[in-house]
Order: sequence, then C-alpha cells, then structure tokens
Amino acid sequence: MSKGITSKNEDYSQWYNDIVIKADLAEHSSVKGCMVIKPYGYSIWEKMQAVLDQKFKDTGHSNAYFPLFIPKSFFSKEASHVEGFATECAVVTHYRLKNDGNGNIIVDETAKLEEELIVRPTSETIIWNTYKGWIQSYRDLPILVNQWANVVRWEMRTRLFLRTTEFLWQEGHTAHATSDEAIAETKQMLDVYADFAENWMGLPVVKGVKTANERFAGALDTYCIEALMQDGKALQAGTSHFLGQNFAKAFDVKFTSKEGKQEHVWASSWGVSTRLIGALIMAHSDDAGLVLPPKLAPIQVVIVPIYKNDEELQKIGAFAAELSSKLKNMGVSVKYDNRDTQRPGFKFAEYELKGVPVRLAIGGRDMENGTVELARRDTREKQTVPQDGLEIYIAQLMEEIQANIYNKALNYRAEHITEANSYDELKELLDGKAGFIAAHWDGTPETEQKIKEETKATIRCIPLDNKLEDGVCIYSGKPSIQRVLFARAY
Amino acid sequence: MSKGITSKNEDYSQWYNDIVIKADLAEHSSVKGCMVIKPYGYSIWEKMQAVLDQKFKDTGHSNAYFPLFIPKSFFSKEASHVEGFATECAVVTHYRLKNDGNGNIIVDETAKLEEELIVRPTSETIIWNTYKGWIQSYRDLPILVNQWANVVRWEMRTRLFLRTTEFLWQEGHTAHATSDEAIAETKQMLDVYADFAENWMGLPVVKGVKTANERFAGALDTYCIEALMQDGKALQAGTSHFLGQNFAKAFDVKFTSKEGKQEHVWASSWGVSTRLIGALIMAHSDDAGLVLPPKLAPIQVVIVPIYKNDEELQKIGAFAAELSSKLKNMGVSVKYDNRDTQRPGFKFAEYELKGVPVRLAIGGRDMENGTVELARRDTREKQTVPQDGLEIYIAQLMEEIQANIYNKALNYRAEHITEANSYDELKELLDGKAGFIAAHWDGTPETEQKIKEETKATIRCIPLDNKLEDGVCIYSGKPSIQRVLFARAY
Ligand SMILES: [Zn+2]
Ligand SMILES: [Zn+2]
Repeated sequence: MSKGITSKNEDYSQWYNDIVIKADLAEHSSVKGCMVIKPYGYSIWEKMQAVLDQKFKDTGHSNAYFPLFIPKSFFSKEASHVEGFATECAVVTHYRLKNDGNGNIIVDETAKLEEELIVRPTSETIIWNTYKGWIQSYRDLPILVNQWANVVRWEMRTRLFLRTTEFLWQEGHTAHATSDEAIAETKQMLDVYADFAENWMGLPVVKGVKTANERFAGALDTYCIEALMQDGKALQAGTSHFLGQNFAKAFDVKFTSKEGKQEHVWASSWGVSTRLIGALIMAHSDDAGLVLPPKLAPIQVVIVPIYKNDEELQKIGAFAAELSSKLKNMGVSVKYDNRDTQRPGFKFAEYELKGVPVRLAIGGRDMENGTVELARRDTREKQTVPQDGLEIYIAQLMEEIQANIYNKALNYRAEHITEANSYDELKELLDGKAGFIAAHWDGTPETEQKIKEETKATIRCIPLDNKLEDGVCIYSGKPSIQRVLFARAY
Repeated sequence: MSKGITSKNEDYSQWYNDIVIKADLAEHSSVKGCMVIKPYGYSIWEKMQAVLDQKFKDTGHSNAYFPLFIPKSFFSKEASHVEGFATECAVVTHYRLKNDGNGNIIVDETAKLEEELIVRPTSETIIWNTYKGWIQSYRDLPILVNQWANVVRWEMRTRLFLRTTEFLWQEGHTAHATSDEAIAETKQMLDVYADFAENWMGLPVVKGVKTANERFAGALDTYCIEALMQDGKALQAGTSHFLGQNFAKAFDVKFTSKEGKQEHVWASSWGVSTRLIGALIMAHSDDAGLVLPPKLAPIQVVIVPIYKNDEELQKIGAFAAELSSKLKNMGVSVKYDNRDTQRPGFKFAEYELKGVPVRLAIGGRDMENGTVELARRDTREKQTVPQDGLEIYIAQLMEEIQANIYNKALNYRAEHITEANSYDELKELLDGKAGFIAAHWDGTPETEQKIKEETKATIRCIPLDNKLEDGVCIYSGKPSIQRVLFARAY
C-alpha cells in the first residue's frame, strides 16, 4: 500500500492529519467541527477509558450521569463561568420540527422553549444544582463522582482530536467539607493523570499550576499536566481544578458541620478528553505512521504468514494459533492476519501505519529453522528470533518498547526545556528550537497577556516542583521569584 | 430506616417511583424530562454495558462514535424516518450567548445557524451519510459498528428510566452486501438481546416481529423482545431493525459487487437503552425494595458485623476479610459494612432496599459457633450456615438466586398469557388480569389502530415461534391465520 504520509519535517500539521486519516482513527463529519471517531481510533479511547476508570474507582470514585442540557439561567449564576463558556455554546431553542406543507421540514415556531437550553460545555452548574439536593450534613460528604460524557464547545477552527466542537471526556466533580480536603483531591487527581500519561501513554508531563489568565472559568486554582509534542509545541493533557466554594455559593449548597454550623461546600473538578489521542499521536509517531505504546495498543502483536502453498500455510497457521494462545494467556493481544486478498508487503505497511508494536513474519524457511522474523515498530528494527520461548521474549519486549517510547519522549523534552534570560531570547527560541522556555515573569496578568499577543506563547504552568530563584521579568524588568514555563501550545 | 415504599398492590406506579428514588437509582433533574442517574443506578448500567459490549464484540462488532448533531436536511432524506422523529426533537438554532448589557445572558441573534442542527434521536441518518465514504466495494462489507451514546427524544410525559427526554443507549448500525445477510444480522442481535434479558436480567422475553403500525420509522421489519411487568403491562426491552436499502437509497450508498455491478447496501440497526433498568426494577422488585439478579448486582454479598465490643469487632473483621478475599477470587463482589454511624437494623433495611442478593450478619455468638446468619433477598429467607466452606455455598447460591428470580418471572408470565376469542373477552382481560392476550387479528393496520384507540392496547408482536391457526379477527370478524399478542404497554 502507498502510505502517502507527508513528512513530519516538511509539514508537521499535514503529517498529523495524514496519520489520523490514513491510520483510520477519525475523520471530519458533515457537521461542522464534529468528528467521527472510527473503530480503530475508538478502540484506543476504550483502552484509555478502561485504565482511567479503574484508577478513578481505586481512588474511591463512582460514575454517574447528569443531563446533556443546562438551563441558560444556570450559567449566569457563577459570574466568571458564564464569561468563559457563553461565547462558544450550542443553544437549543425549539423542540419540534414540522412539515411546511410544501414538503420542507422546518422548525415549528409554536414549539419554542420558554428558557433556552445549553448543550453542556462542562457540567459544574447542572451538577452543583443537583448536589444541593444530596448534601445536608457532613455525613453526606465527600461526594466523589465522575461522569463519562460528550460535551460541546463551539469552535471555529477545529482539528481532529485536538480541538473539535463535540468531544468525549470524563469530568470528575467532588464535594468536600473542608478546603484542605478539596485541594488534596485536586492534587490526587492530577497525580492520577500524570501517572496515566507517563506510564500508559509514554508521555512525560510537567505537573504545574496555571496562571490566573489560563485558569478554568470558575476555579480558584487550575492544576494541569503539560506535555511536549515533536514540533516543540506544548499540549495541555489534563486539568484538575480547585473550585473553592464558588459553585456551592452560586447554587447555595451548604452542609451542617460536626459542630452544627452551616457552611458552604468545597469543590474540585477534573477532566481529560479524546484530545489525549491527539497527544498520543503527536508525541510518538513518525513518517511511517502511528507509533503506539504497547499498553494502549488495541493490537499488540500481529502475525503475518508468508507461504508458497497450502501446506506451508497450514503449518504456519498451527504455530500461530499456539503462539497466540500462549500470548493471550500472558495478557498480550494478538491478531493473526491470514487474509489471502492482500500481499505480505501490503500488510506490513498497514500495521506499521497503525502502530502495532510488534510484527511477526513467518515463512516456510522459518518453520524449518524454528525461527520468526520480528519487527519492532518503535525502532523499526528487524531480527530473527527463535520460536522456542518466543512468548516470553515478546512479553518482555512489550515492556522494553513501552520504556523506550517513554524515554525517547523524555529525552526530547529534556533537550527542549531551555532557559531564556531576555525577551529577545524568548522570541528567538519560540521561532527556532521551540519547546518549553523557562523564564522569569513578574506575576501579572497584564505582562502575560502582552507576551501572548506579541508572541502567541502562553505560560503553560508554574511547575509544582519549581525551585525559587531571584530574577527579573524578561518583559517588564520587575522582580521575579521563579521561572515559569512559556510555550506555544495546541 | 423507614423505607416509605408504597405497596405494589396499592399503587404500582408510585411503588415503582418510590423504589427508584429510595434505592438511590435516579432522580428528576431541573431540566424538564431529563434524569440524573445516581451512582448506584449507574453501576447497574455499567454491569449491563460490560456484558452487552462483550457480546457485541464476540459477534464481530466494533465500537465507534458519530456526532451528537444531525443537520436538519438529513432527516428529510428518508420519508418515514422524518415523520417518526420530527415531532419530538431538540433543535439547536444558535451557537452563542451574550451579555445584553443589563447583566442578563441572552441568545446572540447574530450567531444563528444557517441550517438548524437536531440533537440525535437515533443515528441512522448521520451514520449512513458517513458510511457513504467508507463503502466502495463488496470488500468493504460488512460494516459491523456499534455506538454507546446519549440520545434525545422530546417527551411530554416522562418516567424515570422508562421514558425520559434524554436517555443512554447503544445503537448498532451494520451494512451488508445482501438482504439475507442483513436479515441474519438483525435476527442474531435479537438473539443476543434475548439471551441477555433472560440469562442476565432474569427476564423472560417473547421474541417477535412488530406490525406495520409499531415498526421503527424507516425499517422494513422491526424485531423485538417483549417482557411482562408485575402489573401485567408489557415492556419492549429491545429492538432490532431490518432496514432494507432504505437508508442506502436515501444517502446514495452503493457498492461494486463481486460481479462488478453497482448495488445499494443493505442495513440493520438495533438498540437497547437505560430503559432496561426500569424493566429490571419492575420485573422483580417487591414491597421491601429492589430485587436484583446476582449477575447484574453491583454488590452481590454484604457483610454486616454485630458486635458488643472492639474485641468482637476485630474477630469478625478478620473473618470478613478472609471470606471477602475468597469470594472475590471466585468472582463474587462483596462489601463489608463496618460503619459505626448506623445500627445493624438500619443497614439490613438499606441493603434490602438496594436489592443486594445475599446479606450476612455475623455476631460474637456466630464466631463462637462457627456460623453466620445468611439472608436471601429474593425469598427473604434467613438461615444459619457454617463458616466452613461458606464461599462455595455462596457461589452456588448466586446461581440458585439467579435461576429463582428468572423462574418466578417465567411463572408469572406463563400465568399471564391468555387467549381471548372475542373483543369483549379482550377488553375484560385488559381491565382485569391483564398480561399478554393472544387473539386473532385480521392483519390490517386499521383494525389494530381502532383497537388501540378503544382499549389502549397495542399488538406487542407476532411471536417468531407462532403456530399458524385458522380463526377470525376478534374485531372485524375477518379471517385470520394466527394469534398475535395484545397488551397495554410501557
Ligand atoms: Zn501547566
Ligand atoms: Zn414484540
């Protein structure tokens, strides 16, 4: 098969789109800004969901489901929240269509809603309106709930997985008796996300806190994990918000404390979305297609028979069946591709494109020699390995590939965190080497905003493990106590 | 705890609502017609999803995701489809809110969509519009795709789980080269649903085909599984539609056959929804609360310690930990409830209300005697059983309870399928014993419609295993070749 993937160095953006389309992950739909997630792409999302869902449950959370629609008035209740989301939402105004008599289907104007409904861009308002009924006493706390759902944020410029009008995500919404507990939850979930990104996605991330400009609309603090893509741009891979008592006050949610006092409830919310698939693609893939870390690969091993006649095919098939069964027992997923409609070379290219971590090719000679040809997707190396003990070799190889993919991304990032000590240096780095740029900043939203307008770079975060260091702001020359991470971002 | 459940015999409808609310399954939201599925209710849905999803995958299907919104014009393309869905849909007309300057959030009239978007009531149109791009040749067929999603059908009168404006479901959409293959798929998925209903939900179902009046808008044939609730009303628990070439023609989806001819593609679609939770509740529960079949119970066994002092509690706790570990190894889920804020009697009532299949109470005397008190939720029988080998006894008991729940429902249904040989008999049965009423019908939509208007009963289905039998229609007196099943339905 001709892959037709644009080279990453030639046009990174087109390279990304080519991989999404040619690896059969997703496509644009006929609805502006909305994507279709195709079966192969969706199977990666299912792997992600399974791991994350287990982590949420292991940390004491339960899933629930809240309405898709939010009454318009709910948005107005939290002032900064409405500012953040009002300009990009789908509004339901009517609840019926009708035939106009000329064979055209039109909106039935007699079926106009008294109050418009907003398709949820995020669910804090509807959920806190609900929690009001669930919380009376400290005994009802904490509430640790997560929701897997679709959300809609009207986007003018969209990119598959990275920015779409509708996307899939999970949103955790927790309620606590104390500020400390809510902050601990916020940080715990940030750690869960970081663990998932690093140990499943093979994606090193910086854990940090957002500046006021980049904070979630309605949060007191937004924590985030920030990753670096292969073009040196940053990508926010997950956020966890400490909401203080903002939503509890907006929706009048109080509880009776152990001491018998009425107090407002403390809140967190946290989410990751199908955007993670975009991050996964952009972080590891190459000009031959997708590269998937084994822990998230829908197919971990593919076996391709190379045969001259039925007798050979039968022998190879018997060996493949036995090997598959052994691998499955060890938790390794296998596909045996004996389609006779495609040649081996076509299959090789297809599985390379789809990022299958290990490909085995087995021919008549291999069967005689007791060997197979094994190709690693991450390094693209081929080697001949003995059939004897192959399942053990492959199981270990899965771990090695997982580690190698992570380390490669970690090395890339280490090379792409650079200090800038002047505004000129920052601008040069942004237009050249890119990556995270650690620079002093005076801590004001005004300076950050000006730098953003002039360079398109934002402060991705103030790293949690930041060391304090006296300096002067690269923009204003005012005093600064620490460097923050600037980058252009997805 | 005071349960406050209305008696089933006194007011069946209120009894149902009481159980949904008091067992913490779901509640009405502030958005008209939309429900909040609470954690305990959602955990039942997750159990259902896990089983169904595996069955779909075992029969060769993959999951994918299609847009929430459907352009209005797509609906007009399949004539009967738009008739069926146009009168009950949420219409998105704008994509922005704004502040009117007086502090009110209003719809921004400058952000009006050129073409309105419908929130999907079902996804045939958007999916077949997508499949057009996926299908060129017979080699691209079959397409076997399922989607887990939320859908919206505007409902004026809603009931938790049974009929809500938004609900969760799965919708399978398959594309085939031949009519035979599409019909085989339609029937296969009906069998999957029947297997799930009977062997997991403990719900006996009649497999049948709908009459033209009750057919899905756009289908050539709608197959369904019909169950009977404890008030003698029927509930459609799942449908599988043979769509013929209707959607392929509406969206111009053709393929090149092996013989090189251009042909329209054949289709099926099939779905079950959160309505199944309503069926589960209504089929098995009693005046003490929910009764869950073990295979779908989020908690299968609860252990409640009854202790006088810390020493006793410690001994009981050690035993409970060991038993829990043994049970979990056998695939039985266990909760050990050692809350000291509630008394044992309160806990007993709570788990009874929530339908936990087996409750163990263990006191100091039990520890001395090497026994436990075991209570079955389905029969409400208590017995003292030895601690030795308890995990094996419980694992077997799970199967016995599962079978008992099914058999009880099966007996009820057997007693509530009655033949009626005149219209008067039908009416008497409907107002008395209720259940499925097997009667002769002349096969015309007009007769069915008149019976429906006069009695509120519909033909639930023509059973697939129906025996042919000469007779006369109870309404028109015209000749009939078989009995069909009438009932009032949810
Ligand atoms: Zn950050
Ligand atoms: Zn039926």
